[in-house]
Amino acid sequence: MKNKKFRIGIDIGGTNIEFVLLSSCADKTDDAVFSHTKYPRGASGNELASHIKSAADLMLSENNLSVDDLESVGLAMPGNLDTENGTVIHAYNLNLHDFPIVAELKNIFPCKRMVLLNDADAAAYGEYRFGALRGYESGCLITLGTGVGAGLIIEGKLYIGGKKRGTEFGHMTLDIDGVSCTCKNKGCVETLCSATYIEKIGRESFDDNTMSAKRIFELAKNGNKKAIDIFDSYVNNLSSAIAGYMALLDPEVVALGGGVSLAGDFLLEPLKTAVEKKCFFSPIGKIVISKLQDKAGVIGAAFS
Amino acid sequence: MKNKKFRIGIDIGGTNIEFVLLSSCADKTDDAVFSHTKYPRGASGNELASHIKSAADLMLSENNLSVDDLESVGLAMPGNLDTENGTVIHAYNLNLHDFPIVAELKNIFPCKRMVLLNDADAAAYGEYRFGALRGYESGCLITLGTGVGAGLIIEGKLYIGGKKRGTEFGHMTLDIDGVSCTCKNKGCVETLCSATYIEKIGRESFDDNTMSAKRIFELAKNGNKKAIDIFDSYVNNLSSAIAGYMALLDPEVVALGGGVSLAGDFLLEPLKTAVEKKCFFSPIGKIVISKLQDKAGVIGAAFS
Repeated sequence: MKNKKFRIGIDIGGTNIEFVLLSSCADKTDDAVFSHTKYPRGASGNELASHIKSAADLMLSENNLSVDDLESVGLAMPGNLDTENGTVIHAYNLNLHDFPIVAELKNIFPCKRMVLLNDADAAAYGEYRFGALRGYESGCLITLGTGVGAGLIIEGKLYIGGKKRGTEFGHMTLDIDGVSCTCKNKGCVETLCSATYIEKIGRESFDDNTMSAKRIFELAKNGNKKAIDIFDSYVNNLSSAIAGYMALLDPEVVALGGGVSLAGDFLLEPLKTAVEKKCFFSPIGKIVISKLQDKAGVIGAAFS
Repeated sequence: MKNKKFRIGIDIGGTNIEFVLLSSCADKTDDAVFSHTKYPRGASGNELASHIKSAADLMLSENNLSVDDLESVGLAMPGNLDTENGTVIHAYNLNLHDFPIVAELKNIFPCKRMVLLNDADAAAYGEYRFGALRGYESGCLITLGTGVGAGLIIEGKLYIGGKKRGTEFGHMTLDIDGVSCTCKNKGCVETLCSATYIEKIGRESFDDNTMSAKRIFELAKNGNKKAIDIFDSYVNNLSSAIAGYMALLDPEVVALGGGVSLAGDFLLEPLKTAVEKKCFFSPIGKIVISKLQDKAGVIGAAFS
């Protein structure tokens, strides 16, 4: 194993911290993931760095490696990050503010290269290197969950925005007179394409506050009329969002991740038909389901 | 003059063909435009190539140059183009279909390099090399005319789409339940941000079929209530379109061209305020007026 480049990826989420150890090679053909583990996040702030160090040390020793064997460590996390300087500006869910996470971690865990990146960007990069976007030079991973995020691949590289502040697919306008978004705009993609949207209109329609997006899709699959109407409106919304993105950037492939994407072909087939009808370009790029799903971020962090 | 690289740009429009002769140098600091001329398009199909050759020969001889002095010739035109193979697939306004324009022109006008590109892309590249986008690595030129088009600069390069079919800013969805567009979709940016939109709602509002976008903006400037309402709705539409594009790509600069942009600061100032309010990112990238206006395409073609 010693003749390869080893990398650790770390994905810091609200609940857990995930770790992956993998090897990569220049031509990408022999990349391999050795181990993947998950720990409750627990610690925050300064304790976070030592918590990460312990887990990384354990993972290395289990694979007969030491920190000297590491080419890089990639850290993915949500929030407003200064990726160039390795600092968390604000990560509200993690209660981290103005925290120089890369410097803290480098102090106790010295490795050749340590990078910080946004979790949506890391997930897209993971799919690009090892998943559904592999083999394409242009595309994105759209994560359909509580919110809507996307990471973009442009000309074979992760694109983190012209001003390096990330990309916000979920905050493009889809309905100019639509409902207010958590940002300050109206009718953003996120207001119409998130799992939250499905849940919200499902709960209203069924007058049942326990309805989940998953349950509504199951009911639609079983022919429930109300659920089918909600599913159809969701496909209409998401297809317009994707058709608009495709009109602007004409990508080779769009991968769907997040909870909603677990619906698989049931969502994918009507979605493709609707995007093909709406998009300026024909034929449209491929639309597929994420291969790595919730491991995309940690694997992307490792490859970064 | 002989120690520089000389280039000819040609912009084939519905009415005229424009020509420019310029010199460029590697560090871009000493670029200069020598002459710019315009001829009625007249000929089409096979005659077009000889028409272009005559005009280019004349321009070269007036500057004591010959075709051997030329580094490249760039051709910009509207329509559905196969830029890699130098072929016009469909250019309805020019009545050209499956026409190998680069091969035809190379037969009679042999020069080292001849490129074909979409007119909106050429205009953005012109602004990038010699106009309002110069000095930035990310941005776009949005042309607000009969329709809405844009050319994108991403990481210091003209971006012509992941599948090399161009980019269609004007056909992103802005109003999911909006009016039908000339493409097959509904509520595209073009339906709400073109000069045609201003004219259409202006003619309805004033019950006057002679109203132009320019006249409506003039009336708004002079305090006419109906015209101000139309102007405000236009600023609302355009600011949402720009805020959405900025959310996705976070560019350093957006330049506005086309007839509507001639309104200058009267449009620019309220537009900036509205985009700043709506955009996910703050501060937003700069918003400016095109410097080259209707010469952007021919200059961009020359630099390509």
